[in-house]
Amino acid sequence: MLKTILKSKLVKTMENIAGAENVLSGRDDLIVYSTDSTNIINPKEMAQAVVFPHSVKQVSEIMQYAYKKSIPVTARSAGTSVCGACLPKKGGIILDFSKMNKIIEINKDNLLCKAQPGVIIEDLKKAVEEYDLFYPPDPSNLKVSMLGGSIGLCSGGPHTFKYGSTKDFIIDLEVVLSDGTIINTGSDCSKNVTGYNLTQLFVGSEGTLGIITQATIRLIPKPEAKRVMLAYFDTLEDTSKTVNDIISNLITPSVIDLIDKNTINTIESFYPTGLLTDKTAALLIEIDGFKSELNEQYEKIIEICKNNNSSYIQTAQTKEDEEKIWISRRSSFGATAKLAPNVVTEDVVVPRNNIVTLVKGIREICDRYELKTCIMGHIGDGNIHPNIALDLRNPVEKNNFLKAKKELFELAISLGGTLSGEHGIGSEKSEFINQALNSNSIKIMKQIKKLLDPKNILNPNKIFTEE
Amino acid sequence: MLKTILKSKLVKTMENIAGAENVLSGRDDLIVYSTDSTNIINPKEMAQAVVFPHSVKQVSEIMQYAYKKSIPVTARSAGTSVCGACLPKKGGIILDFSKMNKIIEINKDNLLCKAQPGVIIEDLKKAVEEYDLFYPPDPSNLKVSMLGGSIGLCSGGPHTFKYGSTKDFIIDLEVVLSDGTIINTGSDCSKNVTGYNLTQLFVGSEGTLGIITQATIRLIPKPEAKRVMLAYFDTLEDTSKTVNDIISNLITPSVIDLIDKNTINTIESFYPTGLLTDKTAALLIEIDGFKSELNEQYEKIIEICKNNNSSYIQTAQTKEDEEKIWISRRSSFGATAKLAPNVVTEDVVVPRNNIVTLVKGIREICDRYELKTCIMGHIGDGNIHPNIALDLRNPVEKNNFLKAKKELFELAISLGGTLSGEHGIGSEKSEFINQALNSNSIKIMKQIKKLLDPKNILNPNKIFTEE
Repeated sequence: MLKTILKSKLVKTMENIAGAENVLSGRDDLIVYSTDSTNIINPKEMAQAVVFPHSVKQVSEIMQYAYKKSIPVTARSAGTSVCGACLPKKGGIILDFSKMNKIIEINKDNLLCKAQPGVIIEDLKKAVEEYDLFYPPDPSNLKVSMLGGSIGLCSGGPHTFKYGSTKDFIIDLEVVLSDGTIINTGSDCSKNVTGYNLTQLFVGSEGTLGIITQATIRLIPKPEAKRVMLAYFDTLEDTSKTVNDIISNLITPSVIDLIDKNTINTIESFYPTGLLTDKTAALLIEIDGFKSELNEQYEKIIEICKNNNSSYIQTAQTKEDEEKIWISRRSSFGATAKLAPNVVTEDVVVPRNNIVTLVKGIREICDRYELKTCIMGHIGDGNIHPNIALDLRNPVEKNNFLKAKKELFELAISLGGTLSGEHGIGSEKSEFINQALNSNSIKIMKQIKKLLDPKNILNPNKIFTEE
Repeated sequence: MLKTILKSKLVKTMENIAGAENVLSGRDDLIVYSTDSTNIINPKEMAQAVVFPHSVKQVSEIMQYAYKKSIPVTARSAGTSVCGACLPKKGGIILDFSKMNKIIEINKDNLLCKAQPGVIIEDLKKAVEEYDLFYPPDPSNLKVSMLGGSIGLCSGGPHTFKYGSTKDFIIDLEVVLSDGTIINTGSDCSKNVTGYNLTQLFVGSEGTLGIITQATIRLIPKPEAKRVMLAYFDTLEDTSKTVNDIISNLITPSVIDLIDKNTINTIESFYPTGLLTDKTAALLIEIDGFKSELNEQYEKIIEICKNNNSSYIQTAQTKEDEEKIWISRRSSFGATAKLAPNVVTEDVVVPRNNIVTLVKGIREICDRYELKTCIMGHIGDGNIHPNIALDLRNPVEKNNFLKAKKELFELAISLGGTLSGEHGIGSEKSEFINQALNSNSIKIMKQIKKLLDPKNILNPNKIFTEE
């Protein structure tokens, strides 16, 4: 009873809208929700309530209330952001979408599906595969990460090189605006030029322009078969040249990922599968398509790897081999987490002709600051993830990391690249955005933010720093 | 001398900025520029000057002047719009980009090229092919249409089904804003989530939000080979089921276009190549990829066509055969133009499971209004082009056409579709946009327009009707 009396007006309003069983407001719960996968806990920035909405109507009602009272609202699905995108920097309400987790429709004739933000990516992929359809985006954490966050951050994954990232598959969004207005941004037609492309304004906007409550997703026919291999190299130059040569031979691998020596060693000690630990780098290459076409590409790729001095090529002969290689690859973040209490993963991207300079530069910076760093990433896209293992409670390590991070971004920008390929900006890179974008573009982005969120209640202090 | 004295301040300012040789202001010239491929000439809506800019600096200076003086500015490249997108509805200045026609860079390692708005699409495609690269968008008029208009309208073409439309290949734009400010919307990295996706806000915005002066284009490796065939059917149901069955067999044709009986007959009488004129419809099917994979797909498609009662299948055996089929297909608009003084082409799109109802409905509407109509389109995308041949000087025909057009849009919308898949809205469909989009979405679009073009000088009265 006492507890009820002490409940704030905000919490009671949320309970009225969503039901008491769908609202958390205890301190312990709020502490949990003051963190995501970004290694940050700042209890000063706790929300006042976490709400699990069950319908767009509830989200609209919550936004109407939040708008009236100028209460910040942060959308969250699995909380797997590594850039602080779902941290409640200014308190307020967290909308946890994990209970809006239905796949509404899979339509094979129209090559589309409709789903809510709480659907787990892997579940979505598996569900459409039952219909022989394919949803290519595959963030590494796809076993837990959800559609809502994935659209909000425009996440990618290894298959982005051939198929594109989340943005390339979203054709319509149901969005609740800051004042509770519900809009649809597109239509069920993947080809549609009727009006401005609002869909792509919301994809990747990190919940700062509106709250996504449903998505319509374009699908493609599932590739009939795939082949996976790991090719090892003694130099980064050979690795990079191999990628260029594969593409020059008209081959677009479905995956072409770089894994550096540190990453290989870390994975192998965590989950031993016989990776070769003495090589400078490996390329994880997957090709997919019709069975009939794969052999020729496969042989060609092996020839190219050999011509570029690949010292060893592991080819997956069975489904189990493939699985093993993929589990290794996806373990890179988890394995790095064994090295120290925290892992920070970065996400810089450069035009591919600068990839060797970038990777060597990252190594040099991290070595200079004595940071244990495993480097891997999507070399085909020029998108590199340094996974840095450290103890953020140690002020020296933390300070070194912050200096290294700054230099890392400066390096990527100096190479014609930018801060993030697929993880987003959130709170963790916002101070660097002025270096990455021209001031006139930022001015327009901020004007659009102000237009759509005049009270600055939608995930405030993300992407851009406060004025 | 007299002529010089009579020149308006506007014309003189344009001459000062761009050079007298790059400004047209004679009445005859202005009449020419008061039309595009939309069959409309309204001399009351003539511009005061046509300027051929040669640099982004000149465009910026022109926009600074236009902004100060509140003069409308309409960007134009080849003038091939079929929706009135480049008509000067409120006079002012036309920027003709045909002299900013350079391909600035083709970078094979980075899989990108940079080009100016006046580059002809086919020239761009051929130039990148020299590097074994592929730019898939292929509007039917690609021999004349230019990049600028193609981005402004987000044009597509037959290859959109497999590869996506113009939007899917543009990763950065240099844009001059209404006040002359120059911005870049993206970067040289195709994978980039640093800030909002301004690029896609400008793609398809028909010059109403900014003036595009350069584009960075993502490219892909060129397919090694292709196979082309024409399969004839006696019913639309069989035609449509064939498309579904092909996709169910995991095949994504690079092209899958529908050509109806009227279109076949019209093409065949214009450019005889032996098309079968007694069939209800034909599917033009192209598959591309590695030589090794094509045979199996090809045989499978033929089997599927036969299983769906295809009464005849023409397969291209040689490069010449292929060329012949493609020339036939691309002649559909030109051939229809032989039937009457004017051809109006529409561009409705529906989810593919409603394609038969759409095509039959179009036929019924056009028959009822006694309009000679050739129907073709990109059946894979649900995107259908009725090409209507008529004499717009005849008030009865014109009135019938306007009624039919209204019913056509209502039909597409009632089938879950929308007004335009790849031609845009321009001046010709703007009165229907309130039916196609929800009012809250339109409100946001108009707010964005107002934000980026506060004086309403950028291609005014397009996409949306005047308040």
